[in-house]
Amino acid sequence: MPFINIQVTREGVTAEQKAALISGATDLLVKVLNKDPQTTFVIIDEVDTDNWGVAGETITQRRKRS
Amino acid sequence: MPFINIQVTREGVTAEQKAALISGATDLLVKVLNKDPQTTFVIIDEVDTDNWGVAGETITQRRKRS
Amino acid sequence: MPFINIQVTREGVTAEQKAALISGATDLLVKVLNKDPQTTFVIIDEVDTDNWGVAGETITQRRKRS
Amino acid sequence: MPFINIQVTREGVTAEQKAALISGATDLLVKVLNKDPQTTFVIIDEVDTDNWGVAGETITQRRKRS
Amino acid sequence: MPFINIQVTREGVTAEQKAALISGATDLLVKVLNKDPQTTFVIIDEVDTDNWGVAGETITQRRKRS
Amino acid sequence: MPFINIQVTREGVTAEQKAALISGATDLLVKVLNKDPQTTFVIIDEVDTDNWGVAGETITQRRKRS
Repeated sequence: MPFINIQVTREGVTAEQKAALISGATDLLVKVLNKDPQTTFVIIDEVDTDNWGVAGETITQRRKRS
Repeated sequence: MPFINIQVTREGVTAEQKAALISGATDLLVKVLNKDPQTTFVIIDEVDTDNWGVAGETITQRRKRS
Repeated sequence: MPFINIQVTREGVTAEQKAALISGATDLLVKVLNKDPQTTFVIIDEVDTDNWGVAGETITQRRKRS
Repeated sequence: MPFINIQVTREGVTAEQKAALISGATDLLVKVLNKDPQTTFVIIDEVDTDNWGVAGETITQRRKRS
Repeated sequence: MPFINIQVTREGVTAEQKAALISGATDLLVKVLNKDPQTTFVIIDEVDTDNWGVAGETITQRRKRS
Repeated sequence: MPFINIQVTREGVTAEQKAALISGATDLLVKVLNKDPQTTFVIIDEVDTDNWGVAGETITQRRKRS
């Protein structure tokens, strides 16, 4: 009965990519821990680049510099 | 001082339904664990059906089939 | 397909109380949003009083004072 | 390698305030636990006042009364 | 800079299985979204079967019946 | 009414350090967003190094190599 939460920056992730993440994460739990896919949940959260920070600055700030 | 997070699909949950979830969840913690409602927090997250998966596919895909 | 996470301090919550929280939270989602209980998940996290803070101090510190 | 999640109500938090939260939270982990800022993540979630409850009612309801 | 949280029941997951989950989840984000593995975090939470519920009862209760 | 969750590896964090994290995180929300400390919650989760991964391997594996 696994629950998987994937958090990524909100930068144009497509419905196909989301479906691939959900399918791949479910397969991983089935393969590694023999879990039942019927009760495997995946939730994807997309986070604005202003709201995600690493090394003390927002992703927005990092993207501008690079 | 409980904290309750409720995640549901974003499918037209009304303000009244949200208020009922918050009131009901708070009552539950008071009734079962004798917690103080003043310091009981509830956060509801609504998740797009593209971003929620079960059994390896998105809710969007499941809704189309059924 | 709701997912509910309940966080409480680790202070002797019994298996019966946990079962009552899980049952009650599931009923709430069924009653308010007509969700299917078969795909309603509840996870309870118990948090040490040293690891939970409110008003800038740990629950351990607050318990000592009161 | 800390991960910090800050949840606040969605009430006009500016990009500058978000950057200050991210910078301050990162500094805190460096100062208290000597963590490497390069692998310190911060994610800010903004929650609608209809979706956040305390004392059994939504923040929207509380704001109206006060 | 993805962050992945995997929640499973605490039922003897080995260090090798945890390493396989972490490696597989990281590969998934690299493959689907071209993310940098260096800044991909995975956290596995193991949850006691008394603390996880589905269909209104704890996993402990379900395991006993089946 | 902010809620802050801090996740760090379980490597001997002392009660004093936890209290400093809680106090510092609360002060940050007061200073940046003028939040009320009385309704500011902080929860610290300590995660085993086997259960935390970065760059596709567990922290346990990384610590052994370095």
